[in-house]
Amino acid sequence: MTEELAKDPIRVGVLGARGRMGAHVCRAVDGAADMELVAMIDQGDWLFNASDASAEVVVDFTTPDSVMDNLHWCIDQGINVVVGTSGFTKARLDRVRSWLSHKPELGVVIAPNFAVGAVLMMEFAARAAAYFESVEIIEQHHPKKLDAPSGTALATAHEIAAARAAAGLDAVPDATTDEMAGARGAMVDGVRVHSVRSSGLVAHQEVLFGATGETLTIRHDSYDRVSFMPGVLLAVRQVLKRPGLTVGLGSLLP
Amino acid sequence: MTEELAKDPIRVGVLGARGRMGAHVCRAVDGAADMELVAMIDQGDWLFNASDASAEVVVDFTTPDSVMDNLHWCIDQGINVVVGTSGFTKARLDRVRSWLSHKPELGVVIAPNFAVGAVLMMEFAARAAAYFESVEIIEQHHPKKLDAPSGTALATAHEIAAARAAAGLDAVPDATTDEMAGARGAMVDGVRVHSVRSSGLVAHQEVLFGATGETLTIRHDSYDRVSFMPGVLLAVRQVLKRPGLTVGLGSLLP
Amino acid sequence: MTEELAKDPIRVGVLGARGRMGAHVCRAVDGAADMELVAMIDQGDWLFNASDASAEVVVDFTTPDSVMDNLHWCIDQGINVVVGTSGFTKARLDRVRSWLSHKPELGVVIAPNFAVGAVLMMEFAARAAAYFESVEIIEQHHPKKLDAPSGTALATAHEIAAARAAAGLDAVPDATTDEMAGARGAMVDGVRVHSVRSSGLVAHQEVLFGATGETLTIRHDSYDRVSFMPGVLLAVRQVLKRPGLTVGLGSLLP
Amino acid sequence: MTEELAKDPIRVGVLGARGRMGAHVCRAVDGAADMELVAMIDQGDWLFNASDASAEVVVDFTTPDSVMDNLHWCIDQGINVVVGTSGFTKARLDRVRSWLSHKPELGVVIAPNFAVGAVLMMEFAARAAAYFESVEIIEQHHPKKLDAPSGTALATAHEIAAARAAAGLDAVPDATTDEMAGARGAMVDGVRVHSVRSSGLVAHQEVLFGATGETLTIRHDSYDRVSFMPGVLLAVRQVLKRPGLTVGLGSLLP
Repeated sequence: MTEELAKDPIRVGVLGARGRMGAHVCRAVDGAADMELVAMIDQGDWLFNASDASAEVVVDFTTPDSVMDNLHWCIDQGINVVVGTSGFTKARLDRVRSWLSHKPELGVVIAPNFAVGAVLMMEFAARAAAYFESVEIIEQHHPKKLDAPSGTALATAHEIAAARAAAGLDAVPDATTDEMAGARGAMVDGVRVHSVRSSGLVAHQEVLFGATGETLTIRHDSYDRVSFMPGVLLAVRQVLKRPGLTVGLGSLLP
Repeated sequence: MTEELAKDPIRVGVLGARGRMGAHVCRAVDGAADMELVAMIDQGDWLFNASDASAEVVVDFTTPDSVMDNLHWCIDQGINVVVGTSGFTKARLDRVRSWLSHKPELGVVIAPNFAVGAVLMMEFAARAAAYFESVEIIEQHHPKKLDAPSGTALATAHEIAAARAAAGLDAVPDATTDEMAGARGAMVDGVRVHSVRSSGLVAHQEVLFGATGETLTIRHDSYDRVSFMPGVLLAVRQVLKRPGLTVGLGSLLP
Repeated sequence: MTEELAKDPIRVGVLGARGRMGAHVCRAVDGAADMELVAMIDQGDWLFNASDASAEVVVDFTTPDSVMDNLHWCIDQGINVVVGTSGFTKARLDRVRSWLSHKPELGVVIAPNFAVGAVLMMEFAARAAAYFESVEIIEQHHPKKLDAPSGTALATAHEIAAARAAAGLDAVPDATTDEMAGARGAMVDGVRVHSVRSSGLVAHQEVLFGATGETLTIRHDSYDRVSFMPGVLLAVRQVLKRPGLTVGLGSLLP
Repeated sequence: MTEELAKDPIRVGVLGARGRMGAHVCRAVDGAADMELVAMIDQGDWLFNASDASAEVVVDFTTPDSVMDNLHWCIDQGINVVVGTSGFTKARLDRVRSWLSHKPELGVVIAPNFAVGAVLMMEFAARAAAYFESVEIIEQHHPKKLDAPSGTALATAHEIAAARAAAGLDAVPDATTDEMAGARGAMVDGVRVHSVRSSGLVAHQEVLFGATGETLTIRHDSYDRVSFMPGVLLAVRQVLKRPGLTVGLGSLLP
């Protein structure tokens, strides 16, 4: 037996606890030896349940409408936050940063995708971007999805665009003169993004890079929401050690 | 030895003979034991070279601008035609049919794609269409292509739409409410078509069908123009036995 | 209201009712307006429950060890059977045929895969086989699967081999002289089959056809067992109209 | 105009100059502003042509039979070498290292693949390996290839195996008990490798990683040998600055 004292488990609250993702998060936190699930909160419940239970970290899988209020309240209460809710624009991120500036010890992690494979896909896409003149993103989801492109596709496009700019690349070559509206996809920061919707699919994304005589494809397939849980637990552990705002899980991977 | 007399080779002229596809056609005809290449015609040459050489079949790989004049002249001269030039609308096809009505013994084959694999892809897509509520087309080409979607993608979408209508299927399910312009592709007869353009690619198409819990994907990859030649030679042989207008190579496959 | 009399629902028993597939079948039969679930039987239960309940059709998703006894008993009792259990060799099929010869009015349907997409994949593979000199099968499943290749891959290879033989094709070209054991896959009736096993996967198969300058790929992805249910219900309805042994769902598709 | 003096072009000789790859290398060197093609050598020519022409770097695309003699001679003559010839075992690499130990100023780069996309694929595969319990490699080539698996697949498997060992991962999960010989591929350092051969294909490789509920796929497609040339030119420039043996292009990428 070591002399090191066992650490107290991390006290975790979940917002959106009855949603599809939130329910998975509750089970995952409950099953983690180093965490304790102290509050399950959903629409109609008081946020104070989280502070009353002395939550150190709150995980938010709610809606774009309520997430900013939740974040403001948590930061005010001195609770760290891991956010999986979508809809974060640059303006929203700036507001979170300004709230955090008054609580320099607190951490917030906001990520578009918690699957480790998706995080690596984004990292690899940013790394490959400088070496190929062509790049397009094809994301594929079930037909009940409301937004197109997906948040992961937008985040990937932004990272690729930044890497291309840093490398001094010209615009992607494209001789199209005769386009039926929409055929060439949405233009996101100079990167074409195509959103496919089909029954049977879950959540998939392909990033296609091309240069003379070769292509490189990085593809991620999510078959089940359980694939997000290792990333959520990683973020809960890391947010305590990372004051300030962290966007994306990339820098948290060991 | 059989008593049957060896048949005379089919006398073939090529329009657009110095173009990329035309040059391949000339070589393929030249190498076919049952054909004789009797005229190689390009911009600036006289069409009369074809009739002077007694061509029985003319193969046209020219441009949308000149193909209708070429077709009119050939039909007038009593020469059968195989057309690989793109840009055929319903109105153009109707005009060809009306010209042919005065020459009931003549045949014309117009095909968007002469690769046997592409022809089978279209046949399979039409057959599968009735069994899946979702379907989308993703076509991928080199970045020098001028039109989007490709002629093959348009033809595939039309065949799928006809098969869905015959099966009485509802519209493809799609809950998208928040779309960045173009993300969901072009809508062709109720079928979403996405056009990807990238260096390194040649000519590729994927048809994705989806139903609860499963997807079926049919994909064709053309790596080289030589893949079109068996289909062109097949059309040259068959056009002599098929009076009237034949659209697509599908019905010619043995 | 029409004057046509409502038909009595089909009385269905399920063998292997507590297994993963069997439980899905029970739910699907229960939810079908034209069927009645009259017996749910599993290990330790009497088969007589099926005959006592006057089952007209029994669906068997059990194990290779017990399925032949189940089939023999059902045929003896005059009950039609739909079988999804794997492990059917030519010898086993012959035995079923001989049992059926004494009950000419009975039907048995044995299928390696009930997903409509998989059935179409096999149909398309058999149709395409005559047109390509190269063909290989890559099947991909979760790592808990015991057999490699899968029953669907074996059935696909047999159909392709038959089609190649009928078309008079030579052996698939392959110049390999320096092979690490197993690299080129298993040889099934002259067709190479590769079995991939990975966490995250469910049940997937790709058939790759190749000729000079082009490839044609037919791919089926099963994400969920519910995708098999429409095919199981179709087989239950059709087995009553098809005396004798039917192998594969192909001929039952409308 | 800058005061910096223009550098003299790098003097390059090519061994295997009349081979398919060698001919491409000659053209690429000839077209590079900072290089001069000073010797084109093939079977039957004297190696001395390279030293007589004062080559600073020799590029070797010959055969496993002759490459070791070529390397020995070049090192002896004080010429740096870039090698694309396959067949390098650990024993061969050790021999090259021992020869180089007597010429500490000389550099040798030996790479299994010069396509930038393939180099990135290997880098990404090594990086992802620690995060997924499952991994398999599927490489696909034209049917004239003699060896299976390809050198690139072997190199990828070795890098993945090293990364898994460093991360302390257990063996890849695999419950297969009933395998037809070869179905599960070749076992390379604990990684299953499948080699597909088909007409129409050029050179392709897919690395599939899997964990619960998700897969990550990294795929490289070479459509044309020209895709190797930027990597060859990069190696020629870098070998002058990297004394000793460098295996793989990975560490040379900017």
